Amino acid sequence: LHIELINTGTELLLGRVLNSHQQWICQQLADRGYEVTRQVCVADSAAQIRSAVNEALSRADLVITTGGLGPTSDDLTREVIAELFGKTLVIDVGVLAEIEKFFALRKKPVPERSKVQALVPEGSIVFPNRNGLAPGLATNRGGMNENNPQWLIMLPGPPRELRPMFIEFALPFIQKQFPASSPFFFRTIRTAGIGESAVADRVSEPLQQLIASGLELGYCARVGQVDVRVAARNQRADELIRSAERIVCEQLGDFVFGFEEDQLEHVIVRELTAHKKTLLVAESCTGGQIANRITNVPGASAIFLAGQVTYSNEAKQKFLGVRAETLAQHGAVSEAVAREMAEGARKQTGADFALSVTGIAGPNGGSDAKPVGTVFIGLTGDFPTVVIRNSNPFDRVTFKEVTATQALDLLRQKLMQPK
Amino acid sequence: LHIELINTGTELLLGRVLNSHQQWICQQLADRGYEVTRQVCVADSAAQIRSAVNEALSRADLVITTGGLGPTSDDLTREVIAELFGKTLVIDVGVLAEIEKFFALRKKPVPERSKVQALVPEGSIVFPNRNGLAPGLATNRGGMNENNPQWLIMLPGPPRELRPMFIEFALPFIQKQFPASSPFFFRTIRTAGIGESAVADRVSEPLQQLIASGLELGYCARVGQVDVRVAARNQRADELIRSAERIVCEQLGDFVFGFEEDQLEHVIVRELTAHKKTLLVAESCTGGQIANRITNVPGASAIFLAGQVTYSNEAKQKFLGVRAETLAQHGAVSEAVAREMAEGARKQTGADFALSVTGIAGPNGGSDAKPVGTVFIGLTGDFPTVVIRNSNPFDRVTFKEVTATQALDLLRQKLMQPK
Repeated sequence: LHIELINTGTELLLGRVLNSHQQWICQQLADRGYEVTRQVCVADSAAQIRSAVNEALSRADLVITTGGLGPTSDDLTREVIAELFGKTLVIDVGVLAEIEKFFALRKKPVPERSKVQALVPEGSIVFPNRNGLAPGLATNRGGMNENNPQWLIMLPGPPRELRPMFIEFALPFIQKQFPASSPFFFRTIRTAGIGESAVADRVSEPLQQLIASGLELGYCARVGQVDVRVAARNQRADELIRSAERIVCEQLGDFVFGFEEDQLEHVIVRELTAHKKTLLVAESCTGGQIANRITNVPGASAIFLAGQVTYSNEAKQKFLGVRAETLAQHGAVSEAVAREMAEGARKQTGADFALSVTGIAGPNGGSDAKPVGTVFIGLTGDFPTVVIRNSNPFDRVTFKEVTATQALDLLRQKLMQPK
Repeated sequence: LHIELINTGTELLLGRVLNSHQQWICQQLADRGYEVTRQVCVADSAAQIRSAVNEALSRADLVITTGGLGPTSDDLTREVIAELFGKTLVIDVGVLAEIEKFFALRKKPVPERSKVQALVPEGSIVFPNRNGLAPGLATNRGGMNENNPQWLIMLPGPPRELRPMFIEFALPFIQKQFPASSPFFFRTIRTAGIGESAVADRVSEPLQQLIASGLELGYCARVGQVDVRVAARNQRADELIRSAERIVCEQLGDFVFGFEEDQLEHVIVRELTAHKKTLLVAESCTGGQIANRITNVPGASAIFLAGQVTYSNEAKQKFLGVRAETLAQHGAVSEAVAREMAEGARKQTGADFALSVTGIAGPNGGSDAKPVGTVFIGLTGDFPTVVIRNSNPFDRVTFKEVTATQALDLLRQKLMQPK
């Protein structure tokens, strides 16, 4: 099965916005055993869209487009596709009724230009839009033979309209039209605290036999994390994936923190909630990023008491009880200060765990003994305080991200340790 | 001038990573008056790369590829391009020397497979890689006529190798090979606190005359922000852009917070630094995002005293001095608590400004009177405390982002106000 994705949008080619559709749609499809073979991005121009769609149709069984379904003059996808497929645009009464309802609720007349959003190539299948006005559309034409028509799916541009529509309507439609020829299974195993080549060194050899039986193996390195992805599509796929997961987890041990969409902060909130424990975070150089990531998790309020972003020395003394002598003797970026920050934070509030970070984010502030990128991470609880020293010599924003990930992982490892 | 961009990488089509090259390269080119007309993403397969490059060469004057220059078996770009251009791969002695130096410094022998990175299509121009081993390469072949050869530029995949190389070597090369036929100027004017259609309503009419003279006008809506982008490419371009900027700023007044790459947090750090003022942030529902954004700005430590992420009621009382009666009487999400958080935060530390946020991020915790998305933002200083109430009924992560932007913008407007 050959699938191509076409993203339309002049702003994409001007580099004004990131093409998040590409990753999101490709991932949704890959996770169900479908792979996109090509992705193309063109401007909002009828000639460009026509040429890209025509080329894709010369190769693909299924073409998916995003964008260009709005009510303005640069929304051209609907017209171009109808023309290419030799179909008339007709009013879909169901869609028109939805549009009328939308404006009636807001006590406004339907703007003339919004009515074009009810036009669909004749015979199209309509995917309702629960978060906007432009419906998704699926239209087809005879392919090489009548039993294998080529399909084209048009999706609206805004992510909050596209994503729910894709999950609720487009994916089931694709799965029905193009059923998988063999079972497909995959698993993403997520690790932290170990580099990509070290991960590969540990798992590639033990997986050789499964690879010979059809297992596909891939790695994806992120900032401070490496994902191992295994997939299989044959009669033994389910069994292959279960064996592969067991081997990867054995080989990587504590470096494994989760699966699929898990993030370190999810695991932390889940573990703390399960054990009814609370957390306080004292951050200097990460500037609130750890607190921000933890509070992205729904339900974090049950375990997260507070975050102290003590950027100045005064704040470290006032809110965390770090001693002036310690600051004077060791400097703000030191093992001793990381320790006092964590212990002080815990004492202030009676939190079960306290995590602290102090370091030099740069670009300035480094010295020979403590160059830019130096960081101390402290963790305390009902156990002896731990302080680790790392070197993260990256640009400021990457430094913060890597350091926050290391701090979260220190806590995660402690929480997942067998007692 | 017709430019196409080809990103190679199986992980892109599996949706494992975001294609940040696309936005970054397109933006760098657009800001210098060059527009990419098509971007294509294909897997690391010789057949796919060959077909994509061939198609691009049938249309473009300049093709840029990213990725596939590493030392492993799925790095195929170099070979495929050499074959398409009918050129032999030859060892570049300069590149080989760099590779040997790299491993000598690390006291390791040169791995056999790393030597392929010294292979270049004969006659290529080499762009040094200051952050890795694979050099960038520019190679050409006769186009329609001898005076207009077609160029192909190959860039390495890792962003920290690609970006400096693109700026230092690829861009000057492109500007020399394809000099602009007319002057090009552009300006991005950034606004906050006003929606896209309201921005368009205010500026499109007053800009009509300039548009008739060749001004290009575009909008880009982000979360809580709208950019207005004006560009012109003719003999009057400079003057057109200056006039357009003046008109846009007049029409949008205080909604304009900056230009080009400015972000609200940059403007805030800049203004506070210039006036030697300090800031404290007291966050509840934004969970540290405001502190995190401010501390992304180099030099933030000069103005940012501390952030208090007081997620629990106890923390609001202990660290900010919010009164138990106020919490009991009005609830944690209230005008009164936002006011006490800001005033308490300022009193604790003597900061010149204190910003506070309390709200309901969801998905749970809403009520009829205060549904999910309700937020109160407070600002205090040497002026009467201001508290605004907003409704941001979005998913949790979007809610945090929009709310943080609104809070930063409240402070920004105060700082930019004429005294």
